Amino acid sequence: MVQTVTPWEVKGEIDYKRLITEFGTKEINPTIKDKIEELAGGSHVLLRRNFFFSHRDLNLVLRDYEEKKGFFLYTGRGPSGPMHIGHIVPLLFTKWLQEKFGVNLYIQITDDEKFLLKRERSWEKIEKDSKSNILDICALGFDPDKTFVFRNSEYIKKIYPMFLEISRRITYSTVKSVFGFVNESNVGMISFPAIQMVPTFFEKKRCLIPSAIDQDPYWRVQRDIAETIGYQKAAAIHSRFLPPLTSPQGKMSASSEESAVWLNDDEKTVKQKVMKYAFSGGRETVEEHRRRGGRPEVDVSFQWLKIIFEENDNKISSISEDYKKGKMLTGELKEILVEKINSFLGNHRKNKEKVDVDKFMYKGKLAKNMWEKEFEIS
Amino acid sequence: MVQTVTPWEVKGEIDYKRLITEFGTKEINPTIKDKIEELAGGSHVLLRRNFFFSHRDLNLVLRDYEEKKGFFLYTGRGPSGPMHIGHIVPLLFTKWLQEKFGVNLYIQITDDEKFLLKRERSWEKIEKDSKSNILDICALGFDPDKTFVFRNSEYIKKIYPMFLEISRRITYSTVKSVFGFVNESNVGMISFPAIQMVPTFFEKKRCLIPSAIDQDPYWRVQRDIAETIGYQKAAAIHSRFLPPLTSPQGKMSASSEESAVWLNDDEKTVKQKVMKYAFSGGRETVEEHRRRGGRPEVDVSFQWLKIIFEENDNKISSISEDYKKGKMLTGELKEILVEKINSFLGNHRKNKEKVDVDKFMYKGKLAKNMWEKEFEIS
Repeated sequence: MVQTVTPWEVKGEIDYKRLITEFGTKEINPTIKDKIEELAGGSHVLLRRNFFFSHRDLNLVLRDYEEKKGFFLYTGRGPSGPMHIGHIVPLLFTKWLQEKFGVNLYIQITDDEKFLLKRERSWEKIEKDSKSNILDICALGFDPDKTFVFRNSEYIKKIYPMFLEISRRITYSTVKSVFGFVNESNVGMISFPAIQMVPTFFEKKRCLIPSAIDQDPYWRVQRDIAETIGYQKAAAIHSRFLPPLTSPQGKMSASSEESAVWLNDDEKTVKQKVMKYAFSGGRETVEEHRRRGGRPEVDVSFQWLKIIFEENDNKISSISEDYKKGKMLTGELKEILVEKINSFLGNHRKNKEKVDVDKFMYKGKLAKNMWEKEFEIS
Repeated sequence: MVQTVTPWEVKGEIDYKRLITEFGTKEINPTIKDKIEELAGGSHVLLRRNFFFSHRDLNLVLRDYEEKKGFFLYTGRGPSGPMHIGHIVPLLFTKWLQEKFGVNLYIQITDDEKFLLKRERSWEKIEKDSKSNILDICALGFDPDKTFVFRNSEYIKKIYPMFLEISRRITYSTVKSVFGFVNESNVGMISFPAIQMVPTFFEKKRCLIPSAIDQDPYWRVQRDIAETIGYQKAAAIHSRFLPPLTSPQGKMSASSEESAVWLNDDEKTVKQKVMKYAFSGGRETVEEHRRRGGRPEVDVSFQWLKIIFEENDNKISSISEDYKKGKMLTGELKEILVEKINSFLGNHRKNKEKVDVDKFMYKGKLAKNMWEKEFEIS
């Protein structure tokens, strides 16, 4: 089985257990899951159903919280195009963590990285995508006084000295082995990892990073240098990838229109896409389906419902049962998903009209502080 | 013969003819020298006596000037400590060029590079050195409305997108071969060359860079990419190194106190240093010196006079003659140099008290434009 998982490429069937071993992270076991739920005073579907499956030092984050030392959250988005459902799944969990633990959250928009990645990309397009992505992110409902959303190209003026402090401690050797850089890699990409590490040093508290597992290499390098500059090693909580509509395996791709549902897809488009492309675990004919039943474990519509869209545990069980028994047809299952997605996107559209992006970027309490802050380096 | 000449290391006896071949630059021949002097309406000691000895595309710069297309000047300073006489020699020639051709001049203070270069350097020290270096530079008398002096760590907010545009076009392969980076090099240093190239793109006109020959590798890489992003290849005019007090060969070292005369050395210190350390071309005894004569070609005091401090051609000839014939003793030669240096430094101290640094950095015509300018990238 071939699998490639780097921040810039995910391909092949993904063996998440093997990633835990290869990356040297820890599985989220029932003990730690219970602990989060106990401290949060509630449960989140993405954790309950094991979409977040791996971590680094999550136990220490929870200990710091119990001991009133606190922690902070950091995540990000690379603005290489419009956002789809897969992009916001980790953000929804991040929002829940912020609500439950009352902590600060930093969201880095890596416009620099997306520009560096491909020579033919225009800065104009990156600016346009950044703006629309930021609107989508802010509309998710984070606390506007505890969340700071920033574009690297703009915030660089504050963080440049810290980038220098980090980058002078990372050798080419390290990034070559961790990120797979080669002689043909451009020098901007080679130093970029230091930029992505900067926000892990925004506070002296421990930083918890909710993200998909492909971002872990950054945190591995951060953990090697954090203590040498007087900060704590970053902690992380890793998600799987939301499967593309077209296959129960892999990662939703931004470059394949039919594999994703976009945040700006209208109701009709969502319906057409799910009906046409969602990989089905149903049988060839209605008769056969009624007789042998569907396979929810490979059915993407079912997976999407289970991962994020049907939070009610009883309902998801009964859908699973009905589908397995052949009582529910693929079309009916898809109808449920379409309704759920359209309900979510409808709310999202409304939120986008109301949200005050400036609060997250400049005017909210945390944002204001971050623009006034002087970063001290050694 | 071993020679090493890179932006970070100059050692061994320097064979300037060989550098021209190795770096692929052109010698400044009498034809081009005459042309500069004709267009400038005058001559400068550093050019007349061949201290500036090599160039790239200087002929095209002069052609552009004649055709009224114009050009601009760019040079820089790495603030790794106080400045000595060797640091300002190319700046004095740059000042002359600005005066004679009436062009804009950009001076980059590479505080970032100096911080990246050594892990143990504190940012506090870099800030202190930057401030004092900038004062020294501004005191040299550039046109405050046509000169922009900026620190990378501060101006990065304007030039970051342009840094990205350049850095995505330079591969690790290239910087490895041009600058000699290795696996142990830090990733900040690896991407730094792109920062040093940014000012060559400040105007659409041709950029002429007066600097010591060790900076040429940057311009070599710049010339490979300039046209792909719609700009012109940088032109350069290269100086030799001012020899250290202690030896007629090599480069004055900032880390060896006795080898340099610092801009903040007082009169007594200058006298003591020159008397004690200046490598002499004189003979062992006065008697022998009177009989056999001194050797100005290896005498550092004579070299300093010839390179920069005695601009009068008749005077320098007679000093040379008198020294060769044994009429002038080493002590007398040194007295002349001491007086010249102290006169220069005395003026410099006065200029430092009067100069308005803010004009060069923020408030002069060019500086103001540069802070308001929006850099457009593709």
